[in-house]
Amino acid sequence: MSLYARVQDFYARQMRLLDEGKAEEFAETFTEDGVFAQTTSDPRHGRDAIAIAFRKAIDRRDGPRRRHWLGMLSVDEEADGTIRTRYYALVIEGRRLHLSTSAEDELIDREGALLVRSRTVSHDDD
Amino acid sequence: MSLYARVQDFYARQMRLLDEGKAEEFAETFTEDGVFAQTTSDPRHGRDAIAIAFRKAIDRRDGPRRRHWLGMLSVDEEADGTIRTRYYALVIEGRRLHLSTSAEDELIDREGALLVRSRTVSHDDD
Amino acid sequence: MSLYARVQDFYARQMRLLDEGKAEEFAETFTEDGVFAQTTSDPRHGRDAIAIAFRKAIDRRDGPRRRHWLGMLSVDEEADGTIRTRYYALVIEGRRLHLSTSAEDELIDREGALLVRSRTVSHDDD
Repeated sequence: MSLYARVQDFYARQMRLLDEGKAEEFAETFTEDGVFAQTTSDPRHGRDAIAIAFRKAIDRRDGPRRRHWLGMLSVDEEADGTIRTRYYALVIEGRRLHLSTSAEDELIDREGALLVRSRTVSHDDD
Repeated sequence: MSLYARVQDFYARQMRLLDEGKAEEFAETFTEDGVFAQTTSDPRHGRDAIAIAFRKAIDRRDGPRRRHWLGMLSVDEEADGTIRTRYYALVIEGRRLHLSTSAEDELIDREGALLVRSRTVSHDDD
Repeated sequence: MSLYARVQDFYARQMRLLDEGKAEEFAETFTEDGVFAQTTSDPRHGRDAIAIAFRKAIDRRDGPRRRHWLGMLSVDEEADGTIRTRYYALVIEGRRLHLSTSAEDELIDREGALLVRSRTVSHDDD
């Protein structure tokens, strides 16, 4: 499988964990010291902080099923093996488009498994 | 072409048949005994039943052009050659998001052509 | 990277140029004599005409961030090297689905870089 397809497959599985409310398993898709940053909150450093933040967000939510759609992906592999991606992401809630974003990831390939070292998500205005 | 890309290309062509109102050609993308199941109706068994059900749905419809978007795809190939996929699907009608779903397929590769042996689509609540 | 993944990666980078307001760089992703045609206006012939048309459209726009999502891609390569693609495209503006379209491209591979020789975009009714 090409790296491009691997990243697509990885994102599909990763975001499904989140959409199914598995905050802890979602956090495991980051490196131990992985960072998650987005427009609306302080960056989360490390798997525990990421799991706690998403657990809270999931438990607080009420309403139709939320689904994250990632697309318009570009992938660059650097000489040291770092994989840099850029993509758009939508948050869909039932029949409603909740949010449109663009994002950048730094991924690593650890023994055949992709992990997120850093993710930065920029929310678009309404 | 990698299996992952083949599945993406297959889904694009398959759903375009449906969106262009070609219910009978859409049914041909299933195996002879293929099954289509979704939240809102009894499962359809076999190409004829699938063609009839979608022909009815297409002829009954009025309104803006309907387009099926599949994404967030993950693909697993089993030892016996069965290809299992999971994905999200949206139904877009003009400027309206009509439906958000998640789905699972069982595909087979018959002499280089992918066919759906089984599809299960779960509709999200509004 | 498979041709299918290359086209996906190319479209992601190309549309990001447009969404970031870089009309001139967007036009460079067409061949010198490339053609852009869509439902709502006369075809634009050549990079200069494409750049001018998109520059105007970008400068005229006001409102939330616009993002182009391409998906449901199928790719055919012809014997002479011409690459023919079909896909759907959405225009997302903040939380609003602005437009749903289907499109066809003729691409060429020039020394490892994909370029659009011809693009035809059909807008769906609302």
